[in-house]
Amino acid sequence: MTFKFNNKKGFPFMPSIEGVELSSVNANIGKSKKLDLLLIKVSPGSKICGLLTKSKTCSAAVKWCRKNLKRDQKNSKPLGIIVNSGNANVFTGATGKKVIKKTVIAVRNAIKSTSENIFVASTGVIGEPLDYSKITRKIDSLVTGLSKRKYHSAAKAIMTTDTYPKGASGQYTYMNESIKINGIAKGSGMIEPDMATMLVFIFSDISIDKPILQKIIKECNKSSFNSITVDSDTSTSDSLLCIGTGSAKMAPIKSYTDPRAVKFREVLEEVMMQLAYLVVRDGEGATKFIEVKVTGAKSKKSAFIIGKSIANSPLVKTAFAGEDPNWGRVVMAGGKSGEEIKPNKISIYFGDYLIAEQGSVSKSYSEIAVKKYMKNDSIFLKVDVGLGSGEASVYTCDLTQDYVAINADYRS
Amino acid sequence: MTFKFNNKKGFPFMPSIEGVELSSVNANIGKSKKLDLLLIKVSPGSKICGLLTKSKTCSAAVKWCRKNLKRDQKNSKPLGIIVNSGNANVFTGATGKKVIKKTVIAVRNAIKSTSENIFVASTGVIGEPLDYSKITRKIDSLVTGLSKRKYHSAAKAIMTTDTYPKGASGQYTYMNESIKINGIAKGSGMIEPDMATMLVFIFSDISIDKPILQKIIKECNKSSFNSITVDSDTSTSDSLLCIGTGSAKMAPIKSYTDPRAVKFREVLEEVMMQLAYLVVRDGEGATKFIEVKVTGAKSKKSAFIIGKSIANSPLVKTAFAGEDPNWGRVVMAGGKSGEEIKPNKISIYFGDYLIAEQGSVSKSYSEIAVKKYMKNDSIFLKVDVGLGSGEASVYTCDLTQDYVAINADYRS
Repeated sequence: MTFKFNNKKGFPFMPSIEGVELSSVNANIGKSKKLDLLLIKVSPGSKICGLLTKSKTCSAAVKWCRKNLKRDQKNSKPLGIIVNSGNANVFTGATGKKVIKKTVIAVRNAIKSTSENIFVASTGVIGEPLDYSKITRKIDSLVTGLSKRKYHSAAKAIMTTDTYPKGASGQYTYMNESIKINGIAKGSGMIEPDMATMLVFIFSDISIDKPILQKIIKECNKSSFNSITVDSDTSTSDSLLCIGTGSAKMAPIKSYTDPRAVKFREVLEEVMMQLAYLVVRDGEGATKFIEVKVTGAKSKKSAFIIGKSIANSPLVKTAFAGEDPNWGRVVMAGGKSGEEIKPNKISIYFGDYLIAEQGSVSKSYSEIAVKKYMKNDSIFLKVDVGLGSGEASVYTCDLTQDYVAINADYRS
Repeated sequence: MTFKFNNKKGFPFMPSIEGVELSSVNANIGKSKKLDLLLIKVSPGSKICGLLTKSKTCSAAVKWCRKNLKRDQKNSKPLGIIVNSGNANVFTGATGKKVIKKTVIAVRNAIKSTSENIFVASTGVIGEPLDYSKITRKIDSLVTGLSKRKYHSAAKAIMTTDTYPKGASGQYTYMNESIKINGIAKGSGMIEPDMATMLVFIFSDISIDKPILQKIIKECNKSSFNSITVDSDTSTSDSLLCIGTGSAKMAPIKSYTDPRAVKFREVLEEVMMQLAYLVVRDGEGATKFIEVKVTGAKSKKSAFIIGKSIANSPLVKTAFAGEDPNWGRVVMAGGKSGEEIKPNKISIYFGDYLIAEQGSVSKSYSEIAVKKYMKNDSIFLKVDVGLGSGEASVYTCDLTQDYVAINADYRS
């Protein structure tokens, strides 16, 4: 699938979805006065699925969600998701566990639900103790503020070094059923997700069985969040939660091969791709969005590994920052991937320009034309390996002096 | 082995080694007027061994050396090594092969040897054609200039973005035999060697069989060049060549377990560690040298993988640039390594300061004291995983805005 990203600035229009309510406040968790605490309440009977980081030093919240996703949620009670920014509650030992326990109890009591229905996510500084009372004392005012329209402030409440709130929405009608999908995400640095990205919350009014929804989000994740990298660092807090409320007028989807599941998957993938795009576009210090497309590899997996090797190479990324069409570094980064590559079979394109072929620079190469192309803020880099039919795209951004400045100063 | 690096500025004294002669000139290969072409002539009967990059897009010179190292050198003829900086002769197709052919013939004829005795190395820009006549027309003047004392100018001739020439020397007397070892190296960016670093040439007057020498350099390489990373990018040109002339007064070493081989290995490892140290210390834009020591891992290999994951993390490296004792990022980088880690068993030390233990920040932690420690230009970071007895050290440098500036401008 070739996806056309919505390049427009600003947060998109998000229709309300029956059964999903959101509310955000400032709870003084981080140092700034921004919104930093979000409560999402979802109507009884909704299905929730998730993907969580594979990091071995994951957050207390991730551990809690992993445990809870394996349990059956109580269908007669609402779901609750409580999210804070400003403190990741990672590597905080027994104190960290206590934060989860106290928070879950407070949310459970406030929305009249049970522990297995409450999910938690945290993002921000690693290793600093989080004072749970900052969260628990705000639960009542969060509940009072719940509304079906507050996606924009919700997306703001989960930001850390992000420079703008991130949202994507999809609506379609298929076989006379109208379905809506809303998603919000945050993420800017520490982005090479391994199963999911920083924090992503997706809502739909679709009626679908949990195992089918889980399978669909796992597949869509491969081409979206698992195909992006800002800086090759994998977060301790990566969490994606996806909810189907079942509030659309439709008979429940009970089979993965149901054509309505196929259609839903297609639109969900677009929403997830758009959110992933927004995360890369907001990569710390980034000035350019870069798609690295590898074709002609021995397999899809091989194409992906070569693409990741190029997209993570600091020398490739600094060359892009300098608007230098330095294809020699692309060759180097492909070469170090460990995958099969024969230099005399590779072709390299920057945009539509053929740069290198048959083991050396192309006769048609014009440095002037390509240098002009490099000034764009979206760059398409294609590497055809010439050995098979495997292909994959990886999305990344350039590596600038601002990335270093942000991270030499910011305590994440 | 804990190695004490020689932190002194300046190129060390290098004694002449009987049988090894060097000569350097400017051949206008790159854009600068610096020395950029080096010829080394070694007396007949010397043994030569090497380690070469595993990159799948390696240089024409690396391919030639790989082929030649497998052949038997003619003992009755001298060895020749010709090295240029300013152009890596990588991804240059048929032109690149022709450069090797013409160069080898010119050197072979000038020093009265045979092709299997001639070795080539190139470093610099990737992908630009190299004009072989720039090299071949300088061979005669190189031969005229050969001298046993010219290590300093040789080290200069192989520099690219290096800011100083790199050399290390060792001498010892064991069982009444006096042995000398001289080594020179270059390298500053594109440094995560996979078998060897950028360019390293080591000479000794030891008399030793080739397979034993090969085994020894392979082992010493693990703890030295294979344990360093500047920017996680693996060069297309990494080459290490090691020569034993046999000119010392001694009976040849014919067994790996000969105590004289064990002693030689010990001193050679020190020389290689010192050269590797000099490469990291001169990492592009680097202001700090960092040793990441991982102890208590499940195995030595596991310790090495965790160490590499920490040493390659841009978020860890930028924190060091900002002199911020950001141990949370160390936790994150260990967690993404994929190796077994239990957060509540990890202990983290910066220098002698215990920062974190038992899954959270240490009670004795003083941010003021550790911030002061972070101002040093050499930092020792120790992570005890608490699961076994595997340990390994990885050497790296910080990631600064200068790294980005150098590589956004420099066409490598």
